[in-house]
Amino acid sequence: MSQLRKDPIVGRWTIIATERARRPAAFVDPLSTVTDQKKCPYCQDIASHSIYESHGVKVIKSSSPILDESKPFERQAQGLYEVCHSYGSHEIVLESPDHIANMADLTIEQIKAVIRTYCLRMQTHRKDPSIEYILAYKNYGVAAGSRNIGHSRSQIMAVPVLPMRVQDKTRGAEQYFDIHERCLFCDMVNQELKNRERVITENEYFVVIAPFASRFPFETWVLPKYHHCDFADGIMGYEDSLAAIMKDILLRMKIGLNDPAYNYMIQTSPVKNPSSYKDHYHWHIEVMPRLTRVAGFERGTGFYICPIPPEMTAVFLREVDIHATA
Amino acid sequence: MSQLRKDPIVGRWTIIATERARRPAAFVDPLSTVTDQKKCPYCQDIASHSIYESHGVKVIKSSSPILDESKPFERQAQGLYEVCHSYGSHEIVLESPDHIANMADLTIEQIKAVIRTYCLRMQTHRKDPSIEYILAYKNYGVAAGSRNIGHSRSQIMAVPVLPMRVQDKTRGAEQYFDIHERCLFCDMVNQELKNRERVITENEYFVVIAPFASRFPFETWVLPKYHHCDFADGIMGYEDSLAAIMKDILLRMKIGLNDPAYNYMIQTSPVKNPSSYKDHYHWHIEVMPRLTRVAGFERGTGFYICPIPPEMTAVFLREVDIHATA
Repeated sequence: MSQLRKDPIVGRWTIIATERARRPAAFVDPLSTVTDQKKCPYCQDIASHSIYESHGVKVIKSSSPILDESKPFERQAQGLYEVCHSYGSHEIVLESPDHIANMADLTIEQIKAVIRTYCLRMQTHRKDPSIEYILAYKNYGVAAGSRNIGHSRSQIMAVPVLPMRVQDKTRGAEQYFDIHERCLFCDMVNQELKNRERVITENEYFVVIAPFASRFPFETWVLPKYHHCDFADGIMGYEDSLAAIMKDILLRMKIGLNDPAYNYMIQTSPVKNPSSYKDHYHWHIEVMPRLTRVAGFERGTGFYICPIPPEMTAVFLREVDIHATA
Repeated sequence: MSQLRKDPIVGRWTIIATERARRPAAFVDPLSTVTDQKKCPYCQDIASHSIYESHGVKVIKSSSPILDESKPFERQAQGLYEVCHSYGSHEIVLESPDHIANMADLTIEQIKAVIRTYCLRMQTHRKDPSIEYILAYKNYGVAAGSRNIGHSRSQIMAVPVLPMRVQDKTRGAEQYFDIHERCLFCDMVNQELKNRERVITENEYFVVIAPFASRFPFETWVLPKYHHCDFADGIMGYEDSLAAIMKDILLRMKIGLNDPAYNYMIQTSPVKNPSSYKDHYHWHIEVMPRLTRVAGFERGTGFYICPIPPEMTAVFLREVDIHATA
């Protein structure tokens, strides 16, 4: 069983693999551990394991789950440290019955089915009183931490603790609201739409920007133009619009940046006390291509050096012709 | 001129390269941009550019500095955003006159000269009233964000803002002190030395541990056994001991993990108001090999998955025979 451990200095929770841990020797040449499987495990008959299935999207339990719901959740002290077994759920969302690698190549209808799946699984997991946060995210490509299987998929993790950056974001948004009595994200959307130099693409309900203080080259944020703190509740009625904008930005990256590895994460409000987030928090999606490894000391300092200005990112991605090859 | 920009949500400062920015096309195939230079620029005559020189260690200005001291520092608002030109200093520490790649292969005397250099440069930079923090760090190997030049070097950056994780650390340590009236790091050192399962190596004044809530495989922290918040002041009289323990842990990584890329960062207290940190903060060095790219969505969430328990890291690195080849 894995453990959740809390850093006593900054309060950051980490999942530590224990029983299923990789042996030290497995790290010595990490690239050789990438399996280039000819037979895709996700194209085989996996219906027997599926937790949920609809419109070609299937949800299965991770075959090597790092979280487990079978034991009750309890926190324990180890001297000045805090630890609990890694209670929670870890699911894989198979986004298409076809062997298609990149979500950018799915249809808008398929992406919409994925979005609805995230939404429904979130609504299920948040009924568990031990769950504090639900992460829906994608790792695409080896550089983004995925195995090279070539079958588009994403992941959902329901965890009994709040990830540190979620706390940072909700706290920052709350401080802004306390001063201005307005949502920081709504103000940001308005400023970006007026200024336009960091706007990459938009449709009726969403805008994609290169954030002002980007940490990584080609970092982008997908922001709803309407205010809602929670993804699962707030997406109702806007699924078509989000699916279209996700396909748009992912195609821009695929075509413009030569099919890069990327991650996206849905940044939604914490599960508990939703009413305390509703005025100041604003759900959004961070999409980050993984093009550089220059983020060296950044991991240890939280101080980032972005080698390209977001205004240049915006010009570059804006000019990609997504209709030429789509 | 680069800019320093502040994320309006979490307050994180980022350096944005502007004039010297890489063109978007340069990111498309990032590995091909690694230059495998036959002629090492650091072995050439660079004495004319040196800022400081002692015991074979030379300090030079970065040839592509991302910070600049030539214009006065001032913060400006851009609507709800905050920005300033990237005031500060960016220096390269050439650690040896010889063409040696890894600090692990320097002598203890050479490493001691590097430590004294960090200390002296920090004492110089902190006289500038605009400087808030001084980062001394190393990127070794391509995976750690360094070019493959093969000449051991590290970097010093003096910046006019506080890096986010420095703030997180000092705040966490202060909260612990407010409750317990003891230094969190001293308590941690005592607990680790008593428990021993995460201790990798130690000498009279330093201990190296695999931290309890490690984020990365083989993450290690070098902690002084004595209490001091500030590296530059606190290292006086302990340089020999630190040089010996740095050589020890870097050799363990080099031999045990097949010469991995790695970063280290000296985590010292902020420049201003040192007396407000002296009781609760405790300087230390984080050393992190760069073996995996699995840290996918971690960048966006601050939620880490470590694929090997720190107790296993400690056993593995403890058992490396550093005298066999050293």
